[in-house]
Order: sequence, then structure tokens, then C-alpha cells
Amino acid sequence: MEPRILDNTLAKVREALERDDVTLAVDILQAMRAPDQAEVFSELDDRAQIALLPQLDPAESADLLAELDDLEAAEIVAELPTEAVIRIVNEMEPDEAADLIGDLSPTQAETVLAGLEDPEEIHPLLIHPDETAGGLMTSGFLALRRMMTAEEAINALRAWNPDTRIQYLFVVDAEGRLCGVLSLRQLVVAPPHKRLAEIMETEVISVSAQADQEEVARLMQRYDLLALPVVDAEQRLLGVVTIDDVVDVLVDEATEDAQRMGGAQPLDRNYLEASVWNVTRKRIGWLLLLFVTESLTGTVLRHFEDELSAAVALSFFVPLLIGTGGNAGSQTTSTIIRALAVGDITLKDGLRSLWHELRVGLLLGLGMAVVAYLRAETWGSTPALSLTVAAAIFTIVVWANGLGSFLPLLATALRIDPTVVSGPVMSTLVDATGLFIYFTLARVIMGL
Amino acid sequence: MEPRILDNTLAKVREALERDDVTLAVDILQAMRAPDQAEVFSELDDRAQIALLPQLDPAESADLLAELDDLEAAEIVAELPTEAVIRIVNEMEPDEAADLIGDLSPTQAETVLAGLEDPEEIHPLLIHPDETAGGLMTSGFLALRRMMTAEEAINALRAWNPDTRIQYLFVVDAEGRLCGVLSLRQLVVAPPHKRLAEIMETEVISVSAQADQEEVARLMQRYDLLALPVVDAEQRLLGVVTIDDVVDVLVDEATEDAQRMGGAQPLDRNYLEASVWNVTRKRIGWLLLLFVTESLTGTVLRHFEDELSAAVALSFFVPLLIGTGGNAGSQTTSTIIRALAVGDITLKDGLRSLWHELRVGLLLGLGMAVVAYLRAETWGSTPALSLTVAAAIFTIVVWANGLGSFLPLLATALRIDPTVVSGPVMSTLVDATGLFIYFTLARVIMGL
Repeated sequence: MEPRILDNTLAKVREALERDDVTLAVDILQAMRAPDQAEVFSELDDRAQIALLPQLDPAESADLLAELDDLEAAEIVAELPTEAVIRIVNEMEPDEAADLIGDLSPTQAETVLAGLEDPEEIHPLLIHPDETAGGLMTSGFLALRRMMTAEEAINALRAWNPDTRIQYLFVVDAEGRLCGVLSLRQLVVAPPHKRLAEIMETEVISVSAQADQEEVARLMQRYDLLALPVVDAEQRLLGVVTIDDVVDVLVDEATEDAQRMGGAQPLDRNYLEASVWNVTRKRIGWLLLLFVTESLTGTVLRHFEDELSAAVALSFFVPLLIGTGGNAGSQTTSTIIRALAVGDITLKDGLRSLWHELRVGLLLGLGMAVVAYLRAETWGSTPALSLTVAAAIFTIVVWANGLGSFLPLLATALRIDPTVVSGPVMSTLVDATGLFIYFTLARVIMGL
Repeated sequence: MEPRILDNTLAKVREALERDDVTLAVDILQAMRAPDQAEVFSELDDRAQIALLPQLDPAESADLLAELDDLEAAEIVAELPTEAVIRIVNEMEPDEAADLIGDLSPTQAETVLAGLEDPEEIHPLLIHPDETAGGLMTSGFLALRRMMTAEEAINALRAWNPDTRIQYLFVVDAEGRLCGVLSLRQLVVAPPHKRLAEIMETEVISVSAQADQEEVARLMQRYDLLALPVVDAEQRLLGVVTIDDVVDVLVDEATEDAQRMGGAQPLDRNYLEASVWNVTRKRIGWLLLLFVTESLTGTVLRHFEDELSAAVALSFFVPLLIGTGGNAGSQTTSTIIRALAVGDITLKDGLRSLWHELRVGLLLGLGMAVVAYLRAETWGSTPALSLTVAAAIFTIVVWANGLGSFLPLLATALRIDPTVVSGPVMSTLVDATGLFIYFTLARVIMGL
């Protein structure tokens, strides 16, 4: 829905609540789709949320909670009476129920689990870390036996919970091991008495429960899958990851990467809902660390104090040189980090990438050196100073490009997220080393 | 497949080609899935590619071409004989065929189109820009009439091209206007003689052909859709965008954003396949523009030449101060840009975001001022200089946070992509203004 329409709806819900007309507020909410409900709902204050939620149809509450941020949902549920929570969780998809229960306090989680209709559907999902295939999968899937006929399979389908969307039908053997896949369409158009073993495709792409969610996203994107089966070490089918969860993973990972590449720890919630204090905490660590590293620039400058006093004009170019170095480095790291993320390059392409960037650096450095020389001349610098500036910018750009491609690759080799060596980190590293290059060249060329 | 396995396969294909055993090379390729085929294929040299492609089964060639980068595919096709191209394009999905034909030379495009079996399936797709809903959609969908019975619909399905995956079945009225949707599952479990009008859901989310692809991605993510119908101004169904295309859009947009946020124009192809010259061209523009802007720092420093000569120690803190300002600004812009991209904030939240960031800036500035004061003291600075440094870092951080939230919002209001004011641009803007703040404070506090 358009933001404007949502704002109007929010105003109407608030008005209804002010007049204590909870029924009207509930009706307005229930007329919307779950994502819109969640957006309006999360703008209400805590008291209104806690009053409204148990009044909604439990299935609607379940959908709404599943759409909220994990932490927000857990905070609201913590305030609700246990039997209301149980009623709602009973209506949730197993993977969403497991996510919610995982965020509750241990006592509340235990009471809720104990009261559920199908706790055994959720139990196995609770043991997998959130960011793995096991944490993403749902156990609410239909596994068909390979000896079933097409007709029997369609009947099994008719008898099954009609709420769940079916992308593929997975076929297992008597031990529950994944042995085939077929689409609903293949099933529908097959002769009714054919066995699934004869219709199904036997080459199934699957993933282990421990696989990282980025690996899951990569596989599903690469092979255009709508659902990916998750198996244990014996190939037994444990669950299914669906594409809508992977779309959310892709968006969340891009957000985290953007924040890390900006030099901040990722926020764990919606921006405007994160408190000022929370945002500050996520940033101050990196800012301090970068400050300490950046302090090296002061050390370098103090080391070259005599040169600086002899030629104050040297200092005019300091921000320009280190700024350009930082920019060239940022360009490189952001390209390399992204190429690593989408799998355009892997570690084995390391030397090739480094060589690629060094050549780009040589070209960029040459171009920038010419421009910097002309700029220095127009500021009336001595020929020696202009030459120093040009030589320094060339060396710094090549150095920044080399460092900018080497560090993300090194981080990946050390199994560190390469986004930690992005923009701000690069600029900071290039600043101190760039100054050292500049003043050393000044000593040699200008004979200081 | 694992990268190692692909490398082995590539070696085997190369070996077969060296022995002129094209049949073996074709067999090895055809045993793989299309994305793996494409990865191995794109590592071969041009001559090998052009020799191999027409030998593959046309359907396999079509899948393989669809998996390659757009430009790479067009370059290969440009070298193939026209009748081979027509054979292959006939096997492609309409949206993929349109993408390919759109990248060919006008003459080749015309000849190919003229030779196709169903040019009328592709023609309408060619008129929509690539990055819109119309450019993403496929015209290869099955639209059912609302007066059909469930049984008739299943028969229509049986008769239809079995290659295409069906996520939802869209229902149209006699004028071709979209009026309902149902899942294949709803169709299968419905009583055979019920009319679609009685089974279908009538509230269908659709999008206009002109809508931007980011809008399409946002809608499909928000409402967990597997397919989104595209309609014209009269609500007539034109095509369908499927989730696999949107997953690709999300990944591509994240890559473009990362490159822009690193201060470079996005590359239009796979990193290692982009030539050194191509990468340089994508970066030099921004680097030069930032250099010119950064030149302002030299102007500011020359303006304060007397102060600098009087106290060389002032210059020790220059990189530290402007570096910290740039880092704080980058943190802010990357957070704001991403919050705008995922819809966490919109323009109407502008003032709220600004106020949020100013408060974060005050906290961060205070923290950094304390640390900077101590650092200046340990370097043996005079109390006045230490105080200047502390006051400057406080002011610069607050200023950087304000600017860092204001500029992306301003860009959005002016309908410019906010990623243009990211990391490197922010650092550069903060550098010159930060120096001005620093030296002005020095004049006042140190009485220079």
C-alpha cells in the first residue's frame, strides 16, 4: 500500500483506540494484508499493541507477529498472557514459531513450548543457529514416498494443511532419505497410476543444515530454485528453505554489508526504532579504533616536523593526497568485496585480482599525477614541490589500489568478513602510509 | 557445483577441444546444469565458444546464453550464423529472448526477429526499458478465463508448454483485464466443475509496466510473492515478473550500490572480465571530481598559512580531525542510504532522521572529544592546542552526522540516487569544511 494510505489507516486506528473502540481498531487492521498490518501496528505505542493483539484472530496475530522485527515481536509477546501467546504460536509456520520462541526468555519459551499442539515440529528447529540453513528452514513440508502413485500423492496433498504454499514436492525413501523432486505441475499432468519414482527427477540440489545462509542464498539464486531441501549427514530430509526467506536474507545481508562498509556495526533493528544510544554504541567502537589508527598520521607528521617547518607549503597538499589515496582505496575494496560476495571472484583468483588492480592503479595514478602537477603549478608551487606532489599521488594511488585488493582477500583467507576492511578502514590505513610516502619523496626530490 | 569440480571440468573441456574432439566437449558441457555450463563456457576463449555453441542442443544453448552476462552473450551471438541464432532464440523464454535481442546490433536483431516462430511474443517486451517491470516480465504465461471450470483449466494446463514453471494462475475477463489469481494447489483441490470465478481470490497485487524494478522487488519481498502480474493502464494483463528475476535484481542492485558507495560507477560486467581500461574509466571520473573538491582543503590551508607557520603543531592533527569527520559521515550516510533503500525511512521521516543523527552526533562527538584531548595531551601539546583539538573534533563529528543524514535525503528529494553522496563524497566534503572549523576554533581559542 502507498505510505499515504497507511498513514491514514494509522490515524483511524489511533482514533478508534482513543474512543476505546477496540472492535473498530481490530476491524481496520484485519482488513489489511499482514505486512501492512505490521507497519501500522508497530507505530502504535506499547500499551495499545498489547491491548490489540489478543483481540485479533489468532491466525491474523500470527501473521502480524511474523512480519515484525524479531526483537520487537519478542518484546510484545513478553507482555502477553501465556495462553494468548500459545493460541497465536499454534497458528504460526514452524520456522516463524521457532524464531519467535528463540527470542523469548528461557522460562517463557519453555511454558509456551509445553502448551503447543505440535511442539515436535518446532523442537528440531530450535537447535540450529539463526543464520544457517537449519535456522532458515521450515519443518512444515510434505514429503512423499517414492512408491506412491500420482493419484495417491494428489490425495495426500488434498488432505494436507492447505495454508502452506507448495513449490516442489520432495520424495523420500523408506528411511526418509531425499531421493527425488517433482513439481506440482509434473504431478498434475502425470498419468494417475504412475509411481512417483518414475516421474520424479533424481538429481536434487540440497544443502546441509549447518550451511551458512549466504551459501543457501547463492545456491538458490544460481539455480533459480523456489525451495531448497535441507538434509542431515545421512541425506535424511530435515526441512525446506523457501525463496521468500532467502529474499529477506539477501536484503538483510545487503543492509549489514552497507553499514559495515560505512564503518559501523550493523544495527539489529529498523533504523528509526533503534535508540540514539543504540546507534551510538554500534558506531563508537569503530570510530575509536579508526581514531587510534589515524593517530599514526600525527606520529608521521611529527617525525617530519623539520621538513614541515622548512616548507609550510608541503602541508597544503596533505589532505588532498591522503584524501585521494583513501578514495582510490575505497573504490577498490568496495569492488573486490562485492565481487567476493557474489562469487565473481574466489580466493584462487587472488593474484589475478591483485594484478588487475595494480594495473588499474597505474593508469589511475598516471592520470591523477598529471592533474595534481597542474594543480600544484597553478597554486604557484616550486617545480620541485609540484614534482613531489605528482610523484606522491602516483605512488599513493598504486599503493591504495594494491592494499585495497589485498586486504579483503586476506580477510577472506583468514575467514574474517571482508567488509571490515572497507571504506573508512582503508582511508585510515592509506592516510598514515600515504603521508610517509609523501614526505619521503619530498626529502629526496626537494632535498630537505 | 564446487569451484574445484568446475575447474576440473573446464580442464577436461579444454583438453577435448585441443584434440578437436568437439563431441566430447559437448557431452561434458551438456551433463551439467545451465549455470555451471555458463561458468565453464565463459572461461573458454572466443574461438572455442563460437565453435561449441552451435553444436549444443538448441534448448541447452538457449539456457546457457540466458545464464551468461548480457554483454558477453550478445558478443558471442554476434559471431554466430543467423540460422543458428534463430534456432537458439526460438528455445528461449520470451523475456530472455527479448533481453538478448535488445543487446544485438539493429540489423542482426531485425533478421533474428524476422526468423522467429513467435515474434509477437517478444515484440511487446522489446519496447520496455530493461530496468522496469515491463523489461523484467515474461510474456510466456498462461492466463485463464474466469468462466472456465477447474477441470477445463487443468486441461488447458496440460496442453500448455510444459517447460515453464507455474507459480500462480492469473485469471482474466473477456477483455483481458486481470480479475483474479489462484494457486495451482487451489485449482487441483477444487471440485472439477466449479468455475474459476468462484475459486479465485479477487484482490490481486499488480504493478504497471513502467514501474521501476526496485519497486517490483520491494512489492514482491513485502508480500512474499512468487510472481507479480504486470498490467497496462486499463488493467489488461501484459506479463508476469517471476521471483527468480527479482532475486537477480536484488543482487545486482546491491552490487551497484556497493560500487557507488565506494565512489565508483558500477561496472556493467563480471569483475575479472571487465578490462583494466574499462575499470579505470568507471573510476577516474569520480576520482577527479573528488580531487577538485578536495582541492578546497588546500585553499583553506593556504588561507590559514600564518596560523600554520606560527604553530606547526597545528598541522599534526589535520589528518586525524578530518579523517574522523569523514568516518563519522560515512557511518551516517551508509545507514541512511540503506534505510531509504529498504523503506525503513521515507522523505517524510527526514526531520526525524536528522534529529536522530544530530543526537547520535552529540554523543559520539563528546566521546571523541575526550579521547582527542587525552591524545593531544600525551603528545605534549599546549593546553590551548589540546582544547582546540577537542572542540574541533566535537564540532566536526556533529557537523558530519548532520551533513551525512541531510545529503542522502536531499538527493532523494531531488530524485538523484542517494548513493552518489556516500563514503568518499562525504569524506571529501567534510575535509574542507572540517579544516575551516578547526582553524577558526584555533584562532579563537589559541588567539593566533
